[in-house]
Amino acid sequence: MEEAEEFSSEPIPSSASVFNKSLTEPLLPFSKASTDRQSLSRANSQIAIVGSKCTHVESLDYEMIENDVFKQDWRSRTRLQILQYILLKWTLTFLVGIIVGFTAFGINFAIENIAGYKFLKVNEYFQEDRIGLAFSILIVTNLVLSLFSATLVAFIGPAAAGSGVPEVKAYLNGMDAEDILSLKTLLVKVFGSIGSVSGGIYTGKEGPLVHSGSCIAAILGQGGSKRYRISWRWLRYFKNDRDRRDLITCGAAAGVAAAFRAPVGGVLFALEEVTSWWRCSLIWRAFFATALVSVVLQTSMAYCSDGGCGLFGSGGLIIYNIGDVSVNFRLAELLPVGILGVIGGIFGCMFTLINGRILRFYFALHTNNGPMIKILHVAIVSLISTALMIGLPWLGDCIECPTNIEETCPTTEKSGNFKRFRCPDGHYNDLASLIFDVNNEVVRNLFSVGTTNEFTYKTLFIYMVQSYGLALITYGTPVPSGLFLPIMITGASYGRITGMVMRSLSPGLSELDEGLYAVLGAASFLGGAMRMTVSICVILLELTNNLFLLPLTMLVLLISKSIGDLFNLSVFDQIIHLKGLPFLEEHADDYMKHLKAHDVCSSSLVTLDAVESVRKIVDTLQRTDHNAFPVIVKDEVTQQPIFHGLILRSHLLVLLRGRHFLASVPKDSASDATKSFKSVDFGKPGAGRGMSIRHIRLNPAELEMFLDLRPFTNTSPYTVVDTISLSKAYAVFRGLGLRHLCVIPKIQSGFPIAGILTRHDFIEEHILMKFPHLKRAKWTPLQVHLSAIRKVLDFRNLCKLS
Amino acid sequence: MEEAEEFSSEPIPSSASVFNKSLTEPLLPFSKASTDRQSLSRANSQIAIVGSKCTHVESLDYEMIENDVFKQDWRSRTRLQILQYILLKWTLTFLVGIIVGFTAFGINFAIENIAGYKFLKVNEYFQEDRIGLAFSILIVTNLVLSLFSATLVAFIGPAAAGSGVPEVKAYLNGMDAEDILSLKTLLVKVFGSIGSVSGGIYTGKEGPLVHSGSCIAAILGQGGSKRYRISWRWLRYFKNDRDRRDLITCGAAAGVAAAFRAPVGGVLFALEEVTSWWRCSLIWRAFFATALVSVVLQTSMAYCSDGGCGLFGSGGLIIYNIGDVSVNFRLAELLPVGILGVIGGIFGCMFTLINGRILRFYFALHTNNGPMIKILHVAIVSLISTALMIGLPWLGDCIECPTNIEETCPTTEKSGNFKRFRCPDGHYNDLASLIFDVNNEVVRNLFSVGTTNEFTYKTLFIYMVQSYGLALITYGTPVPSGLFLPIMITGASYGRITGMVMRSLSPGLSELDEGLYAVLGAASFLGGAMRMTVSICVILLELTNNLFLLPLTMLVLLISKSIGDLFNLSVFDQIIHLKGLPFLEEHADDYMKHLKAHDVCSSSLVTLDAVESVRKIVDTLQRTDHNAFPVIVKDEVTQQPIFHGLILRSHLLVLLRGRHFLASVPKDSASDATKSFKSVDFGKPGAGRGMSIRHIRLNPAELEMFLDLRPFTNTSPYTVVDTISLSKAYAVFRGLGLRHLCVIPKIQSGFPIAGILTRHDFIEEHILMKFPHLKRAKWTPLQVHLSAIRKVLDFRNLCKLS
Repeated sequence: MEEAEEFSSEPIPSSASVFNKSLTEPLLPFSKASTDRQSLSRANSQIAIVGSKCTHVESLDYEMIENDVFKQDWRSRTRLQILQYILLKWTLTFLVGIIVGFTAFGINFAIENIAGYKFLKVNEYFQEDRIGLAFSILIVTNLVLSLFSATLVAFIGPAAAGSGVPEVKAYLNGMDAEDILSLKTLLVKVFGSIGSVSGGIYTGKEGPLVHSGSCIAAILGQGGSKRYRISWRWLRYFKNDRDRRDLITCGAAAGVAAAFRAPVGGVLFALEEVTSWWRCSLIWRAFFATALVSVVLQTSMAYCSDGGCGLFGSGGLIIYNIGDVSVNFRLAELLPVGILGVIGGIFGCMFTLINGRILRFYFALHTNNGPMIKILHVAIVSLISTALMIGLPWLGDCIECPTNIEETCPTTEKSGNFKRFRCPDGHYNDLASLIFDVNNEVVRNLFSVGTTNEFTYKTLFIYMVQSYGLALITYGTPVPSGLFLPIMITGASYGRITGMVMRSLSPGLSELDEGLYAVLGAASFLGGAMRMTVSICVILLELTNNLFLLPLTMLVLLISKSIGDLFNLSVFDQIIHLKGLPFLEEHADDYMKHLKAHDVCSSSLVTLDAVESVRKIVDTLQRTDHNAFPVIVKDEVTQQPIFHGLILRSHLLVLLRGRHFLASVPKDSASDATKSFKSVDFGKPGAGRGMSIRHIRLNPAELEMFLDLRPFTNTSPYTVVDTISLSKAYAVFRGLGLRHLCVIPKIQSGFPIAGILTRHDFIEEHILMKFPHLKRAKWTPLQVHLSAIRKVLDFRNLCKLS
Repeated sequence: MEEAEEFSSEPIPSSASVFNKSLTEPLLPFSKASTDRQSLSRANSQIAIVGSKCTHVESLDYEMIENDVFKQDWRSRTRLQILQYILLKWTLTFLVGIIVGFTAFGINFAIENIAGYKFLKVNEYFQEDRIGLAFSILIVTNLVLSLFSATLVAFIGPAAAGSGVPEVKAYLNGMDAEDILSLKTLLVKVFGSIGSVSGGIYTGKEGPLVHSGSCIAAILGQGGSKRYRISWRWLRYFKNDRDRRDLITCGAAAGVAAAFRAPVGGVLFALEEVTSWWRCSLIWRAFFATALVSVVLQTSMAYCSDGGCGLFGSGGLIIYNIGDVSVNFRLAELLPVGILGVIGGIFGCMFTLINGRILRFYFALHTNNGPMIKILHVAIVSLISTALMIGLPWLGDCIECPTNIEETCPTTEKSGNFKRFRCPDGHYNDLASLIFDVNNEVVRNLFSVGTTNEFTYKTLFIYMVQSYGLALITYGTPVPSGLFLPIMITGASYGRITGMVMRSLSPGLSELDEGLYAVLGAASFLGGAMRMTVSICVILLELTNNLFLLPLTMLVLLISKSIGDLFNLSVFDQIIHLKGLPFLEEHADDYMKHLKAHDVCSSSLVTLDAVESVRKIVDTLQRTDHNAFPVIVKDEVTQQPIFHGLILRSHLLVLLRGRHFLASVPKDSASDATKSFKSVDFGKPGAGRGMSIRHIRLNPAELEMFLDLRPFTNTSPYTVVDTISLSKAYAVFRGLGLRHLCVIPKIQSGFPIAGILTRHDFIEEHILMKFPHLKRAKWTPLQVHLSAIRKVLDFRNLCKLS
């Protein structure tokens, strides 16, 4: 390879002499590290599962490219243009809020109507004793709706499978993949989510809404589409990954807000769980978006309140107002509340553990086989779900309707606490009341206060077991499927059981209502599985509108999260690992302190000269997949090579396409090079739609010409010296959100740049492959991460097969 | 000076040849920059006003000092010790929550009782027609209480003056000053705040509570006191600025939560306004603390609810429950709501502007004169406030009591909406109802819903004007004084006026209650003056317990903040500037793109050899005030100097005090140097209590000996090359929270380190003093910052005088 030759002709000086002088015995002798380095190829990563498909992953560029073109553009930017930019930013945020609000309304409207008519019809036949027909309708409708969703995912948008929260989290951590936030994915997510939820698959629409919100933001922010010629000039300022990231964060927050009608909770969710970089000014924009969502939802629900939207009432958008319930609790009740936390922690861990194994099996299934297997998979899950829905209520008891309630009993309308099923008049089947309904109605039932003895122990226990089990096997099904509601429901069931036990143990001593215990139970399982705290707290606060429950919720969450963290990762983080998404945590792992930057930094460095021949540039772009190249100038006197800066692949492509080549190497610096290009030309187009060198055709004469790269080179790249500890290099890389971190030799006696650190170099598996003995180091409690890595390595084999 | 000689004997190579090759015309010719550099002295900063005293400011060290001692300590750390550390972290957070909760309760308890009895007594004499006596009691009590507070501040804790929010914000931005968070300050803050609020000075106790919360956290976290021998061994892990910063953030959040009984609002306030560095795991700890605060407050209020706490009821801790008020508004009402936002923005700007001028006068007064002037100042302010309190109600009208209310009218108890003043029975004086009360009762009156026509236009207008004026002249008085409540009250008055206008303009059209307009008015002025958004939103949400008001609140805040930001800084940020606190904003200013790192970096570099003579070290420490020194090793073969790392002043002092010196320069690396010291020895003691070289006495024989600095040198300091643009260097410095950023020459042909960037080098005034022509650059909208700088320069003269 040409690059390799150039590289070896300018060898990096052996700086071993310095390192051997290190005072403490090094964990890694430098010589060993360098031999290891030679034997490893570079291109062993960057494949991950997005949704249910394997795809290439690319890093995002958050760095300001401070080259001359940019500086000139910046200097000439008028106040009007700055105002334009700010206005645009807020307009886009406004649009994100409005559109996400209406999307959420649309999804709920559809689900409530489809599922509502389904249940009404089934109930009707039921009361007419046409049980066979009722069940057939249920089975067929569920199957058709599920398969509709499965078909969309399998054939159109495989990236839309699952909840999407891990994918959004990964994107906001700085990586992009094909279709992760595309229009196709959005459409499949929205319609698929309607199909799967109304089709009785045991999932929520909350996770998918987060993904949809992010997709909407990404589509709005990507500066129009060249293909459909809707590129608006104003949007040119948005053609960078930084602004897009901010907008997508707002979109994710809006999605959560829409899912739970919790504007503050949405912002906190984005802050706590989804984003990796957070700016203070962003909190305000995110809040703006979520407030708009809540305005849209409130307005549309007010519009629908007179029955103009079919079966859609206030039910679809979950809010369980128990604001007027007094929360007086005795100190003795802290014990059962604490126990709830412990149960939540253990259940959460177990869920993560078992679901991890199931997901591995599912991923293997989906990536190794064609789309038909996905459809078959969904069909099986749908049949199991419907079978449980039909079969289990027979185990429930017929309970006499309570007399002191305002609600009609048994329920005649679509929603209500008391489903009759096969019971005599004036009675209801308590298990059917839970099972024969859409998810968010179930939560409403479980959270309802003042409904003592509505459910028996047996019913709640059976329901909890089926809920836990169904959630386990359903998450990972190739349809848009959220995890929030199933987990909330399971938690609420055992919370209610705990409340009932408390009341029976000490009548009069327990002052907390069973409904409040259900809320605490939901919190505990959410904390144990998702390991979020503040956002769950605030979401539950906004859902229940009861500020006084907050301290107890916090106690439960503190316990369940702590117990969960002792054993394994959160369910979303595990999925990120399982999917092989190269996620960078906030802090460096401890073992990185043992390593230095030069230990992990790839040696396949490809550099360009300040004035480079077109042929060499084209060759370089064709032969490597690097995204940035160091530009080297020669000192005029000593002819020593000097590291001038970094130039991006995308910028080189723009230069090649522009065809403003020089006939010969100029003697002096060519100042007119910047005139041919504007900063806008280098703007990054929408996600995953970069140019490729394959699209550029140059004739032989052009190939013999030259390009002056200096005006387009970022002369202020971030650098570290090669002897810096890896944990500190990580802090720079992660803290500043970089894509390329230049490593320069501490002692410059030869080539001025030693390498470039990229995301890949900081990924655990990559480092541990180079330094297997570090695996034995005690750098994680309970060695959890190691097992995660083993899973990822399995996954690697898996994706290669496909 | 010795250092200067050494420096000049190793000259930095002139790298001008490289820079002249730059392609675009540089804004700053390098030669000019370097001559400018010579003429400027280094020590022209680091003095600021804390509270009401001038003091030296020092940066905090958040960087991990990765030297051999640290690494060995880290490797040998057992799992038990890690557990200990985690346990300690949570225990301290727990204690912070509990103690802040009880402190807030204590402050409220004292204020409610003192002010309550005062007003009851005055009212009693009033009804007995002994007006002279009533007024005399009011005047004397107010004066005594205010002067008590003033004396505490003037003679004991000058750092406790003001709200303390700017100081806490500055501390969490990475700077420390004497007494900023000491026990003395805490005590003066708590008792002074009781004195000034119950003494009728127009301030709130909210800001001081934030400062008190931070003080409590700082005291708990500083690892015991050597002086009082209460240094607990477990606390050794906390002897660093990072852990202390995190704890203090929790303390600030707990303070806000205690002030407003708003746990979520507290966390968001800390996040949005106070902290500069935020870690995701911190949100959870802060929330834990604020939840504890709310539990403590709820418990103690429940305990006091049966009257066992004197006049302290639920009133002291403001919460205005209007949760059951329906918020139905017509689209036409968005217009008055928008107007409220505009008014808030303009009022806020004006407030910042005028208060800035008043504060400059006050600061000059306090720093140029002795403590007596402070007491005189407070006496005058107290007399003015009491005079207004006595005089204004005579302008109010006697209004007949409404009949359809549950409350007794006129009020007979301490708190109530209807103060009788000099009105006949069955009537109340509406202006007295506002003025003759403690602040938070006034807010309750203004926010109260369903009390149409309680106040007349005249009353509200008079009250608004006096409130605005008093707030302006009171803030800056040398007593602990918060700004939240005065601003809320002023906003609520004009909000209520707007509501009344709306109702009279279109009866039946306006559906929003006047009380809700008052809430929106309060939001608008808070947004216009403080420029916070989410936290104000959430605090108001938690205060009013009404989720449905949220969208309108947001709209108001969006408008008022945007208008305010057009013209000047927020009130807190302006104070930070006025006080000369070297605050680093989140993002680099635009003009920094024009500069390179070597342009601002101070040239007075002092280096040490790897094995250095004790005499040289002592000399260096005595002659300079630098806090870190580059350590230089010589290459064994070429004798070229190599930059080994950074050693901290504090570490050198520990080494000198340890007296483990070497008799001669060792031939080989001395591996036993680390055995004499443990990582714990280098822990940083409590805030502002570092050792000084003056405390170390060495005999002449010891001075002739040597110290091997290598095991104690941080070999992985963060570096930038000298040609990096200043804005990027700023990103590294601010993003990673550094105290020292090493600048290494791009082309190494001489000395391996070009300088060290510190906080000082990034401060606007320092840069603009070096490069005055940058002032003309259009780098800020409306040139606001420039005027801020001019103010700071005034201030500098001011502090030198004192």
